[in-house]
Amino acid sequence: MAEYSSILLENAVDSLSKLPGVGKKTALRLALHLLNEDPLLTEQLADSLIKMRHNIMLCERCHNISDTKICSICSNPRRDENTLCVVADMRDVLAIEHTATYNGLYHVLGGVISPIEGISPHDLSIEALVERTRNEDIREIILALPATIEGDTTNFYIYRQLKDFKGKVSVIAKGIAVGETLEYVDEITLGRSIQNRTSFN
Amino acid sequence: MAEYSSILLENAVDSLSKLPGVGKKTALRLALHLLNEDPLLTEQLADSLIKMRHNIMLCERCHNISDTKICSICSNPRRDENTLCVVADMRDVLAIEHTATYNGLYHVLGGVISPIEGISPHDLSIEALVERTRNEDIREIILALPATIEGDTTNFYIYRQLKDFKGKVSVIAKGIAVGETLEYVDEITLGRSIQNRTSFN
Repeated sequence: MAEYSSILLENAVDSLSKLPGVGKKTALRLALHLLNEDPLLTEQLADSLIKMRHNIMLCERCHNISDTKICSICSNPRRDENTLCVVADMRDVLAIEHTATYNGLYHVLGGVISPIEGISPHDLSIEALVERTRNEDIREIILALPATIEGDTTNFYIYRQLKDFKGKVSVIAKGIAVGETLEYVDEITLGRSIQNRTSFN
Repeated sequence: MAEYSSILLENAVDSLSKLPGVGKKTALRLALHLLNEDPLLTEQLADSLIKMRHNIMLCERCHNISDTKICSICSNPRRDENTLCVVADMRDVLAIEHTATYNGLYHVLGGVISPIEGISPHDLSIEALVERTRNEDIREIILALPATIEGDTTNFYIYRQLKDFKGKVSVIAKGIAVGETLEYVDEITLGRSIQNRTSFN
């Protein structure tokens, strides 16, 4: 016998409870909320999730999440094309955009080098970054990776790969606490750490 | 400009953050989780929500959530058709089923009388309950409403409506703490409160 006297409800609760941080009780609360509200709400939710999952892509230039082949930041003529900010994750792009202190372009690595998690340099878009320094008129590369051992390792690896790059390579200031990831840093600290970036060597 | 460099992602985050207890940051985490996982996961989630929202109905007999006109509890020949447990909400049916101390049928009111929230007796399935006492061979009605003022008021209102009912009317024992709702009571306390039910007058 179904736990909820309804297989339909049970299936919905099962699907919802597969989401991170959502247990059975929360999933049931969410499902009953949808049942109480206008069917349109459920339709919009289902539709937006399906459209997102099937149509989202990575920007061919910066590897950020995008609806188009080239993302809205890369194709914005008002952005400074001579400065490139290297981040681990698309959430870090959001965090830096929120500080409103940076007007250059980005390069999203897709993670940091981590032998423990089995992430090697070849799993990240480091080669594409080196390629960009050859093909684009980049004068400064700002490394904005997490202030962790993995982030430092990745900084160092990238710095060595950029040996032919004639421009400046800088890292964001260690205003952000060591061990913290960029996502949860407050905007003022993160903004200042971009302004106080130091030369990498 | 889109906050997330992707309208598709923004729409998904907006829809998810309309769910109760889900803020923008949690919604983003859920959306990125779906993007990282197999597309099948998103499809199953969307599909199960749509199917639930469009096809679920209330059991014509007990008003519990059901996939069919008569729910699986009402149509189960092994349940005791002479005993009826009156609850406010379908979550209370789940809570009582989990105690494994009750084998009768249910009647889901759809809430309790609450002038503050504008819920009058006519918004609840009380009339249908009275109708059932006429048409079915019910010998005992157990009132299992929340131990709140609204629950007590509803108990009293139902008791008066049942003046022509020849069987026994009981309320679950006040083993459950006053002011608490049934949903979060531990199974032993709730089970005992059903066993120790007292005559209502």
